Amino acid sequence: MNIDMIRAAAGRLKGHARRTPMLNSPFLDEIAGRRVWVKPECLQHTGSFKFRGAYAALSALEPTVRARGVIAFSSGNHAQGVAYAARLHNVSSVIVMPSDAPALKIANTRAFGAEVVLYDRAGESREEIGARLSAERGLTLIRPFDEPEVIAGQGTCGLEIAEDAAALGIDQADVIVCCGGGGLTSGIALALEAEAPGLRVRPAEPQGFEDVARSLASGEIQRNARTSGNICDAIITPQPGDLTFPILKRLCGPGLAVTEDEALDAMAQAFLRLKVVAEPGGAVALAAALSRSQEIAGDNVIVTISGGNVDPDIFARALARL
Amino acid sequence: MNIDMIRAAAGRLKGHARRTPMLNSPFLDEIAGRRVWVKPECLQHTGSFKFRGAYAALSALEPTVRARGVIAFSSGNHAQGVAYAARLHNVSSVIVMPSDAPALKIANTRAFGAEVVLYDRAGESREEIGARLSAERGLTLIRPFDEPEVIAGQGTCGLEIAEDAAALGIDQADVIVCCGGGGLTSGIALALEAEAPGLRVRPAEPQGFEDVARSLASGEIQRNARTSGNICDAIITPQPGDLTFPILKRLCGPGLAVTEDEALDAMAQAFLRLKVVAEPGGAVALAAALSRSQEIAGDNVIVTISGGNVDPDIFARALARL
Repeated sequence: MNIDMIRAAAGRLKGHARRTPMLNSPFLDEIAGRRVWVKPECLQHTGSFKFRGAYAALSALEPTVRARGVIAFSSGNHAQGVAYAARLHNVSSVIVMPSDAPALKIANTRAFGAEVVLYDRAGESREEIGARLSAERGLTLIRPFDEPEVIAGQGTCGLEIAEDAAALGIDQADVIVCCGGGGLTSGIALALEAEAPGLRVRPAEPQGFEDVARSLASGEIQRNARTSGNICDAIITPQPGDLTFPILKRLCGPGLAVTEDEALDAMAQAFLRLKVVAEPGGAVALAAALSRSQEIAGDNVIVTISGGNVDPDIFARALARL
Repeated sequence: MNIDMIRAAAGRLKGHARRTPMLNSPFLDEIAGRRVWVKPECLQHTGSFKFRGAYAALSALEPTVRARGVIAFSSGNHAQGVAYAARLHNVSSVIVMPSDAPALKIANTRAFGAEVVLYDRAGESREEIGARLSAERGLTLIRPFDEPEVIAGQGTCGLEIAEDAAALGIDQADVIVCCGGGGLTSGIALALEAEAPGLRVRPAEPQGFEDVARSLASGEIQRNARTSGNICDAIITPQPGDLTFPILKRLCGPGLAVTEDEALDAMAQAFLRLKVVAEPGGAVALAAALSRSQEIAGDNVIVTISGGNVDPDIFARALARL
């Protein structure tokens, strides 16, 4: 993993991924006690940063390999990113999803062009299903985060942050990134190391599921006791990745953790002040900037909104808090 | 009014107004039966395109004149645009608002730095109050649309549309613009006339309040019978402007009108597929693209979302339709 891979991914993504803007609001600055700069990856294709990594991975495959198709295990943003990136490359994709996944997510993934294969969480192994399909059809597995080209794709978001920060005259700041397995966080950290070394990445997670924060604090990979039961489910993984953690350990500052209510309040502020739609897991970095300002230093803070794929009823819960 | 004024305004706005992106979604394309390209001015500072015109007008004033401050009559997006543009110029602003304006709008306008002067709609004339304050303090009135520098500022949105359309290889398309007094519509039309003559502007309005569509059809300025009682209130004006109408008449195709439900459905689609917040009046152009496709021709259509300043309860009504 190195900056050249990220720059190469940026070249392949040009004209395909969206160049997302940098947003701000004096109202958010007032809440946070400093300038808050928001990178809204909810505006990316498929509603999350995952499209970057998926497109980077697909576009890096040998054409003959890619032509046989790709496979991913996901019921969420990675599924949609892979499905749409495959469609843009005119190759087939198979997404293996639990049969109890929300109907809307299954429908969306199919609408982006994927073949959805459902499995029974209780009685079947998705890895076995995936291995069988891959062997039969020669599909290439696209991992959600522990995959160099995926990390490189997510890192392109960091190149844009570096460019925007330079234009704003910001050379010292914490960059808070919504963190699950660490693909986006490590990619941004690598990009900033090369392009904006005064910007320091800090992972943000849901409180009670801060495996990355605990891993950084202890220096060793720590696991979450459970991976569900929180409104920010979408970004909760069992533990940081084997590829991502060494990068996080080398480059990141301390992790931040926020409550469910803080995430909902950040979603409401994103609606009210930025006019963008954040999903709960995608709002944890903004929540940290708004609710944990005493844990942050400096006149400026940069945060990602990593995705906006939220059900209307959950969004209505956030609005009701205004 | 000419393209040079728009280009000059773009120069003054550079680094101050946001360069908004162009969004799209295969789901919207499917509903509309053609590619739909969305210019989300809800992401502009203060949540609407109005910031462009306000900043352009403020920045065009002689410094000694500007230093005495500005005044505007508005309870909506123009008020916030003028207040924030004045703050960025370090000059004072007075916004004259009806005393029954929503508390949130009054609070927001004050928070952007304006002095809010309330008047009683029944017993007082806002024009008299404005004239008195202007005379006493030497304030310059910033009109919401019938003002050359304001039209020039809104036209900068058209320059960006022309640039993005060229990058997408689109040289023929209808550009549907949410239309009140016609400042944004005429500004975009002038910009496209010079930069992308194959793109034709068409105003979109709430059904029953389509004064511009009727004016274009008859060739003479027509008035609305009433200016309230619709969820899209914010973009309803009594009639097209004296400056804007001749431009609209010369450059625009036929107007489109949408129902309240169509506007709410477009807000819901913007939430679901683009992850942006549209206000009802700001959603009428997208609504026309999605619901009135038989009135539109071509493989591509470009629409503005002109603003996103919507109360949570109205937004919840749109979400409930999903």
